[in-house]
Amino acid sequence: MSKHKIVGKPIPRYDARAKVTGSLKYADDFTLPGMLYGKVLRSIYPAAKILSIDTTEAKKLKGVKAVLTAKDVPNNETVTRFGQSTEVGKGFEGLYRVLADKKVRFMGEAVALVAAETEEIAEQALDLIKVDYEPLPGVFDPEEAMKPGAYLVGESDTNIIGEFGCSQGDVEKGFAESDIIIEDTYRVTFQDHAFMEPESGISWIDDYGVLNIRVSSQVIEHFRDVADVLGIPHNKVRYIGTIIGGGFGGKEDITVESYIALLTWYTKKPVRLVYNRDETFMCHSKRHPFVMKYKVGAKKDGKLFALEAELIGDSGGYPYLSAWVTLYATVNAAGPYVIPNVRVKADVVLTNNTFTSANRGFGAPQPNVAYESIMDELSRKLNIDPVEMRRINCITTGGALSTTGQVFNTYVAFPEAAEKAWEALGEPTESKDDNIKIGRGLAVGLMSYGRMTFLHDTSRCYVKLESDGSVLIRSGIPDLGAGQISLLCQIVAEELGVPMSKIRIYHSDTALTPLAGTTTATRQCYMSGNATLKAAREVRGRILKKAAEILNVNEGNLDIVDENVVVTYDPSQYVSLNKVVKACDSAGIELFCEAQFNAPFTPVPDLSNIRGTTHPDFTFGAQSAEVAVDIETGQVKVKKIVTCYDVGKAINKAAVEGQMEGGSIYGMGYALYEDYQLEKGVPKTVSFAEYRIPSSLDVPEVETILIESGGGLGPYGAKGIGEPACSIIAPALINAVYDAVGVRIKSLPITPDKILKALKEK
Amino acid sequence: MSKHKIVGKPIPRYDARAKVTGSLKYADDFTLPGMLYGKVLRSIYPAAKILSIDTTEAKKLKGVKAVLTAKDVPNNETVTRFGQSTEVGKGFEGLYRVLADKKVRFMGEAVALVAAETEEIAEQALDLIKVDYEPLPGVFDPEEAMKPGAYLVGESDTNIIGEFGCSQGDVEKGFAESDIIIEDTYRVTFQDHAFMEPESGISWIDDYGVLNIRVSSQVIEHFRDVADVLGIPHNKVRYIGTIIGGGFGGKEDITVESYIALLTWYTKKPVRLVYNRDETFMCHSKRHPFVMKYKVGAKKDGKLFALEAELIGDSGGYPYLSAWVTLYATVNAAGPYVIPNVRVKADVVLTNNTFTSANRGFGAPQPNVAYESIMDELSRKLNIDPVEMRRINCITTGGALSTTGQVFNTYVAFPEAAEKAWEALGEPTESKDDNIKIGRGLAVGLMSYGRMTFLHDTSRCYVKLESDGSVLIRSGIPDLGAGQISLLCQIVAEELGVPMSKIRIYHSDTALTPLAGTTTATRQCYMSGNATLKAAREVRGRILKKAAEILNVNEGNLDIVDENVVVTYDPSQYVSLNKVVKACDSAGIELFCEAQFNAPFTPVPDLSNIRGTTHPDFTFGAQSAEVAVDIETGQVKVKKIVTCYDVGKAINKAAVEGQMEGGSIYGMGYALYEDYQLEKGVPKTVSFAEYRIPSSLDVPEVETILIESGGGLGPYGAKGIGEPACSIIAPALINAVYDAVGVRIKSLPITPDKILKALKEK
Repeated sequence: MSKHKIVGKPIPRYDARAKVTGSLKYADDFTLPGMLYGKVLRSIYPAAKILSIDTTEAKKLKGVKAVLTAKDVPNNETVTRFGQSTEVGKGFEGLYRVLADKKVRFMGEAVALVAAETEEIAEQALDLIKVDYEPLPGVFDPEEAMKPGAYLVGESDTNIIGEFGCSQGDVEKGFAESDIIIEDTYRVTFQDHAFMEPESGISWIDDYGVLNIRVSSQVIEHFRDVADVLGIPHNKVRYIGTIIGGGFGGKEDITVESYIALLTWYTKKPVRLVYNRDETFMCHSKRHPFVMKYKVGAKKDGKLFALEAELIGDSGGYPYLSAWVTLYATVNAAGPYVIPNVRVKADVVLTNNTFTSANRGFGAPQPNVAYESIMDELSRKLNIDPVEMRRINCITTGGALSTTGQVFNTYVAFPEAAEKAWEALGEPTESKDDNIKIGRGLAVGLMSYGRMTFLHDTSRCYVKLESDGSVLIRSGIPDLGAGQISLLCQIVAEELGVPMSKIRIYHSDTALTPLAGTTTATRQCYMSGNATLKAAREVRGRILKKAAEILNVNEGNLDIVDENVVVTYDPSQYVSLNKVVKACDSAGIELFCEAQFNAPFTPVPDLSNIRGTTHPDFTFGAQSAEVAVDIETGQVKVKKIVTCYDVGKAINKAAVEGQMEGGSIYGMGYALYEDYQLEKGVPKTVSFAEYRIPSSLDVPEVETILIESGGGLGPYGAKGIGEPACSIIAPALINAVYDAVGVRIKSLPITPDKILKALKEK
Repeated sequence: MSKHKIVGKPIPRYDARAKVTGSLKYADDFTLPGMLYGKVLRSIYPAAKILSIDTTEAKKLKGVKAVLTAKDVPNNETVTRFGQSTEVGKGFEGLYRVLADKKVRFMGEAVALVAAETEEIAEQALDLIKVDYEPLPGVFDPEEAMKPGAYLVGESDTNIIGEFGCSQGDVEKGFAESDIIIEDTYRVTFQDHAFMEPESGISWIDDYGVLNIRVSSQVIEHFRDVADVLGIPHNKVRYIGTIIGGGFGGKEDITVESYIALLTWYTKKPVRLVYNRDETFMCHSKRHPFVMKYKVGAKKDGKLFALEAELIGDSGGYPYLSAWVTLYATVNAAGPYVIPNVRVKADVVLTNNTFTSANRGFGAPQPNVAYESIMDELSRKLNIDPVEMRRINCITTGGALSTTGQVFNTYVAFPEAAEKAWEALGEPTESKDDNIKIGRGLAVGLMSYGRMTFLHDTSRCYVKLESDGSVLIRSGIPDLGAGQISLLCQIVAEELGVPMSKIRIYHSDTALTPLAGTTTATRQCYMSGNATLKAAREVRGRILKKAAEILNVNEGNLDIVDENVVVTYDPSQYVSLNKVVKACDSAGIELFCEAQFNAPFTPVPDLSNIRGTTHPDFTFGAQSAEVAVDIETGQVKVKKIVTCYDVGKAINKAAVEGQMEGGSIYGMGYALYEDYQLEKGVPKTVSFAEYRIPSSLDVPEVETILIESGGGLGPYGAKGIGEPACSIIAPALINAVYDAVGVRIKSLPITPDKILKALKEK
């Protein structure tokens, strides 16, 4: 095919008009006749025995239609995730409980459910439920929780729920032969997803007894889990996904669905449930805090020679995706560096903190903080320019990941990305105020896109060219707000030569759209993009074949441009798409296709020493920042961020830049402000007044640099960018602060307090 | 595969519970917030010029949101049907108009549309629309309408809209060499479909500007026609079909959809429109009246030797499907008889009567009345037993249709069906009253199933075995109330060895289910049945392959019985379906399939002399009846009907018997009671008080005899039965009345008046 027509252009989103005019219906915008309001009674202790629950008074309240506790849940213990076993952890004991039974494991854990005619009545009913707790000591520090004799959070005889490792070379020998060794402990804390749309959904039973759930979810395949909770066949639950008002991994696990499902199942009525902001904070997952003990050795010339890392993740009260996140962190622990001797060990443990699970970056941002801080320190100690330091050590095309040995046979954007990100900072800003110190930092990183390759992963998409030349697409893809559905439209527009305005997409319905898999793991451009491309090319092929007959030329010389099939070497020869479609119709040629794309599959035999391919591919990049630090107040003002990634091919430039800009700010929040705090398991930051995220006033200039190597596995050589974009901002800022004021902050967030304290100590 | 497990059993319908408990939502059971009520202003003349329409006052009325006339309809002239050209007629000038423009062509024709906040306001608004008509003479008799100089109903210079023919041998020579010739004219009249659920639907615009139409329709593919009316891309209209409360061909054409589409498009609001019963009678299609001039010659031994037929059909004010119905009548004109010399000519003409279109039997019941009356007369004149007469003349396996020469290479159930239908009447009833005369009649016939083979016809179906062993089916099939969706479930239950209770089907959604084509032409068991079977067998194959590995036996020795895969030669060896599904999941074997079934395609080069294959196959059968005729009152009491068809294979015995019983009574109504009357184009029978259909008190014993030759083209050898079952009751009753009282009624219905008049003349 010749040059792209629509791919690569910055195009408005498919849902842009509906969003800006307010006609788009989010999950909580649905109402049904006779609808009830759901509410959740939540634990007031992080660790306690439930001695008894008395719902008598609550049930008596007029307008209350159901009060449910653990004993009403057919399958309270959840052991599978979208119907698949996910036993990668240790002492596996179920991913979570729907409602707390004998014991509560974190503060805010759901204890009982209420459905009532009004929200007010439902809230009154919550007050009438009497729960008799016996507080337990609990454990709140993951390192403490790992010790023998520690308080046991769950039912198992250990709090450790995942233990992973990987190694190559001889680490002891490596350190012995290193000229310089840096050893340090880094700590990162909980991060909330802070999406604008709280967890919300509505459920109802249709004419045939099928439980319908309309919900804001990144994973419509959870219909299977909800069916398992109710103990009904999977096909008796239908998920209808809405456009999501922000997810970032926080809508990857089940949120309200099991609750509304239970309440509808018992009342036979529609039930809507929307979390309050404090529920969003207290009662849903966070990014994992990690304690990261690193030891890195290098030669005098800057060449890395040995790395040892020990990561300990805090899973909070339940496993959820902790084992998986920790697996990712393990693979990511040595970053994109060539290091002959490596040993990584990672544990993840239950505590009585708020539970943790997926968050944009999924195990990458944490170790990135550690190894990129150390790289900066090494380059300073060895007096090597930070870019040069990466030039010396980063893997390049044909190289292998130091943790697992996975080989990259496609373009690896190092040192290119580091050079570009650093150079784009331009001439250093000069401070006009003695108290304001300017500094710059660089970080590089890699982040996988696509699910781990020891899982079977597929996506399917249906494309149909209508008899009038308009197009219908069906995909199970959940749109996270990142433009997933628009992407599929654009691919089809490119292949079929029709304008975006003639394309209609239906998405995210487990009963009616071909399943596309989860919108997680930065996988949808790759997976569903490829499925869509495959389907569209099949239809395109049929069109070209028929047009070749009509025009009496070889198919290879044809392209579809602006609804005409044209002869590429002589554009004056063409036939309208409409005419070809009619000719196909008359000849009985079906102009539709449902295609399936399968990710490659490679087993990983031993998770305690992971070797070989673990991910389909990775996205490589660098991020740099300039900061101004006020040495009197400790305030950090970010002046500029440069985000440079090899995106393979930017199918929708506007969307890619949007992801890179948004990701940069997401990372900046993680680095500087966001700090979900608990005191002995009691959350202290449960509103946006206490939990600060970057506001528009905090946002600096963000320059995005797109490398388009064309080497990705996605359509047109695209790679995934959603998660990578946020994953190395924190170390870039740590390094910039060091550059400005000479102190290295080793725990996130980089608060004024910590800076002032460090300055004082210096 | 071994013996069937579920196929062949009488099973309760998938929708039975929802229907009997009243939870099933028919098309008029939907309400949306802010919904408006649509109403149609209708012509008070059968033929008139519209001089002007003044909507000023109507628009001023508070609560009125839209008043639309022809000038508001982007494409008022409809020339395609579900987006396909249907130019088989002559002087083709569009199938119908959405709203009358300069001229009205039948009484009740839609002239203007109103949408208002309440039904009452909408009705008041209709009264405020001032239409200035100039009445025109019109033409009401098709034979008159064919004459040169006749009043022209449409814009063309002829009223004839279809002319078809077929012939073989030498008819003149055939009659010259015949020993006996019968020449007569038969007339049949308009028949209403008399479904319980009137035409109804609701439309709305969704978040993305797509026009949604939820409607009771046999043809969801009409979304394309509605898009064409509005002049918008086809993919901007979505049809959602409901379970239909009776259709019988009357919901094959567009009914309310264009109206609600226009009203929603202009108001941007949801609009619901439900016909009143008088609108159903006056303003929607009827079965075509035919004038049928027959001349049949036979040899002394009973062998038919020549047949000439001239059929004239009344299309009413617009073409709709008249050309197609007349084509079917042409093919059917000589029935299932071997006749060396045949000539058939059929015309269909516009008049200013209520328009006609599809009705159960689609062109078969009309000629069946003529040729089977004549066969009865011949058998009496030649003194040959009626069954013997069929034995002598009916085609048998390997024979060819006398009209087109289409050859039947599968079992032809003659004379078997005639023998069984006649014998089953049993010992003749003796009359105990001198005024009550008992008589018996027999008729045989054939009726095609599947669309004409010079159209490309396809159906698709999606079958998915969920990870817990439950099943999801998706099909675009509209369920006419005849059990179409249940049929597909049953096929899947058979193939996958799961109980019906574990199967869930989603149907009739143009955006979300694979299109299955129209529920017309008795095609769905054949078409969608086969598509479903294909999909289910694909999934079954994958299951058996994996089970063969597990059990270490050959796939050919396995069957799925009650959710276990069992070794057929040793049922003690088995593995649970659940276990096999899990094994497939782990191995990445996808347990779903969307399959497409294509009907054979054979072109018909010349419609004025149709030769060769016109239909995929035919259903053969015989119906007989015993009647008691009161010679004082002329009343006919049907004592018993026997309906015997070769259904190939009765997949759901209860449903097949239901169709045969229902069809028998439908045919009985046509024969004895139903008479839609017009006086110079003015309908006189527009309620069930005036238009009589059989009540439960009229229904006699109906004995159904199923021949299961296994020779059909549908799944498991099934044939279609929906339409055939009603198609030869009328001649059986005409013949029975003759047998009872010696008078032959040559025009339907067989009313007491006509009998008394004939008795008097005798």
